[in-house]
Amino acid sequence: MTNLERTPEAASPLLEPVAGNGLLHRRLFLTGSAALVGAAGLEFMSVRPAAAAPPEVPVWMKTPGAGMSPYGTRSRYEEGVVRAVGATSGTVGTGASRTPLERLEGIITPGALHFERHHNGIPDIDPAEHRLLIHGLVDRPLMFDLESLSRYPLVSRIQFLECSGNSGANNAPQAPQQSASGIHGLVSCSEWTGVPLGVLLEEAGVRRTARWIVAEGADAAAMSRSIPKLKALDDAIVAIYQNGERLRPGNGYPMRLFLPGWEGNACVKWLRRLQVTAEPAMTKDETSKYSDLMPDGKALLFTFPMGVKSVITSPSGGLSMRGPGLYQISGIAWSGAGRIRSVEVSADGGRTFAAAALEDPVLPKALTRFRMPWRWDGGAAVLQSRAIDETGAVQPTRQALLAERGAAFRYHYHAIQSWEVSPEGGVRNVYA
Amino acid sequence: MTNLERTPEAASPLLEPVAGNGLLHRRLFLTGSAALVGAAGLEFMSVRPAAAAPPEVPVWMKTPGAGMSPYGTRSRYEEGVVRAVGATSGTVGTGASRTPLERLEGIITPGALHFERHHNGIPDIDPAEHRLLIHGLVDRPLMFDLESLSRYPLVSRIQFLECSGNSGANNAPQAPQQSASGIHGLVSCSEWTGVPLGVLLEEAGVRRTARWIVAEGADAAAMSRSIPKLKALDDAIVAIYQNGERLRPGNGYPMRLFLPGWEGNACVKWLRRLQVTAEPAMTKDETSKYSDLMPDGKALLFTFPMGVKSVITSPSGGLSMRGPGLYQISGIAWSGAGRIRSVEVSADGGRTFAAAALEDPVLPKALTRFRMPWRWDGGAAVLQSRAIDETGAVQPTRQALLAERGAAFRYHYHAIQSWEVSPEGGVRNVYA
Repeated sequence: MTNLERTPEAASPLLEPVAGNGLLHRRLFLTGSAALVGAAGLEFMSVRPAAAAPPEVPVWMKTPGAGMSPYGTRSRYEEGVVRAVGATSGTVGTGASRTPLERLEGIITPGALHFERHHNGIPDIDPAEHRLLIHGLVDRPLMFDLESLSRYPLVSRIQFLECSGNSGANNAPQAPQQSASGIHGLVSCSEWTGVPLGVLLEEAGVRRTARWIVAEGADAAAMSRSIPKLKALDDAIVAIYQNGERLRPGNGYPMRLFLPGWEGNACVKWLRRLQVTAEPAMTKDETSKYSDLMPDGKALLFTFPMGVKSVITSPSGGLSMRGPGLYQISGIAWSGAGRIRSVEVSADGGRTFAAAALEDPVLPKALTRFRMPWRWDGGAAVLQSRAIDETGAVQPTRQALLAERGAAFRYHYHAIQSWEVSPEGGVRNVYA
Repeated sequence: MTNLERTPEAASPLLEPVAGNGLLHRRLFLTGSAALVGAAGLEFMSVRPAAAAPPEVPVWMKTPGAGMSPYGTRSRYEEGVVRAVGATSGTVGTGASRTPLERLEGIITPGALHFERHHNGIPDIDPAEHRLLIHGLVDRPLMFDLESLSRYPLVSRIQFLECSGNSGANNAPQAPQQSASGIHGLVSCSEWTGVPLGVLLEEAGVRRTARWIVAEGADAAAMSRSIPKLKALDDAIVAIYQNGERLRPGNGYPMRLFLPGWEGNACVKWLRRLQVTAEPAMTKDETSKYSDLMPDGKALLFTFPMGVKSVITSPSGGLSMRGPGLYQISGIAWSGAGRIRSVEVSADGGRTFAAAALEDPVLPKALTRFRMPWRWDGGAAVLQSRAIDETGAVQPTRQALLAERGAAFRYHYHAIQSWEVSPEGGVRNVYA
């Protein structure tokens, strides 16, 4: 008898739906293999392992393999997993490249696939020539090169970085027919290692009148943002390593400001200058852009923290289902305010929700991977995820967010994403 | 006045040594910037920030930077950070490449710098042609390709992988004059995502007489190891993602066995076959190698778990100090038995120890980064780290390990590493 003829075993309580349209208890995937397979029985046949026959010896076992290399590369069969690059017309270096969220798993984003957002291209910086100056309202102006900065005490943290323009496509009147990456791919997560900015500021001797720090990048746009001193003294770092190795050029090599939980644009790359001031500088980058236009025509400035948010990456827009059966819904959640407390998933467009399983580690201001078992009956379904962070903040519906912010805002879109699954197995973006 | 003339402020209790030869309390680096710099005062002058003068506008700010790319690369100035490759004479693909531990920070190892150990090169596997067969003492033999396997429920975990031959160089009669990478570079840490092996085995219906699983790789060496069924049902996974992206070819693309905390060789790469058996297969790879020869001439077989271990990576062999002052000692610790409970550091060759700070997250069977403040007075010093895991196991001295194992053993060397700092600032491997 082939495995396809296997008889289902007795039903388990874990196969009882916990919310509408086939959502099952999160423990179905957590209580160990016996509970899962013993309970699920035949249903994993939906993944169609082929009938077993002894595997032939493949050609690559018949001759010695390739040699080792000082710096590895990925398989040539994976070269299609890339960032979508979009540049402003007439430029090569003004625009963004997007992390292919639906092709990745876990919470760590490889350096080569970390999203980037540039305002005038990626400078090719010689670290021996690069300097960081701390000046302004300080007793002792200081200047560092990469080598001297690298000898300060370091801290390491796994944290997300998100462009405040991420997901803004969902503010359009019609739901854009794009992938998870196309809509939400301006978020990534790395282990960042750097020097606490507070250490450097204290060494410089920040004066009592200081309230802001103006950070300037060494790119051709001279990206400049004003950062409140309190954040600088809290958990800000000058990052010099990303996922163990030195920063990538597209992420600020040799050093960048990193403000955990705050919008990516404020985490100034290629950091060359920190000017301590009494007032914000009102730079072009924080007035003409990166401000939130409200319904009454006024704009909110300095809206740094990123809201509580989540997105289902599997299944998601452009992917397809392979027929009814048991699936694992998988996605990422994050909040600029701290840890994710829970993620709730709906398969019926938000009418009912049930709690997803969160993968350890659940870290503050980091991506958190959530997973949820779902028995798809082959009918129409609308999948949603709703994140709640440790402060109790709840990811809003699109309707609620637009009611608050109006239709003109561009930044800090963090509403619930809805993916519609059709009976044919197609998945697309909808406003539910 | 330049910063070099700054007057030290009043001494803090945190500057009182906590162990011999200048070790300071771990909280010096944890209690925030004010405590650190207020206490340390002039001592950070050891890092010599240059006197401040306004930074000139560098050439790379004067023209637009480079465009974006679908798959990023690191800076050309970092191309010297590589794995040392060592191949057996007459081969290109039998040997190892070593993670440059002393050039990295944090706990995540980038995929391109993950250590590799190969027995007949790296196969170039077409994932569409690759198959995994589960057969032997099962009710339902199963076969999977990458696509079908990828649709099973996944789990993600940040865990170390270590070759059991790692650090064996320190078993030589004379301390080898190598770097941390040269001695200990066969350990790395990644976020691994895969399918719990127990799910697959339960689906296949493992028979009551089964006790072992023989895993075979699709390389030209047909690497084969016998794994106890209990481990397979515990926390083993068939890994398909590493740090978010698909496995690298050198780490088993498209799928590998991953046995958390167990020696790397047993985590069979390019996994093609799992044969469920009553007895171990006694393959060439677990009898002629990967066995521990004891002083009485007998060999221990199937010694899978990796012991509790740590190594200071900064400063370490081949690096040099820049004169007396305040330093941050930094290193990595890990244990195949679970979490690291504490790491103790000595600056006087093991006479006195004090507890280092552990960076969050401290995860089971993962690298843990530790840090310790040290005020080097410019005299001779011998630095050591000693890890203790959550089971209470303590990393042994070299003397104790050799007394237990004799001088002939090659695998599972996990004794305390001693780095000697000379008054000139050189750092070298010693047996203390």
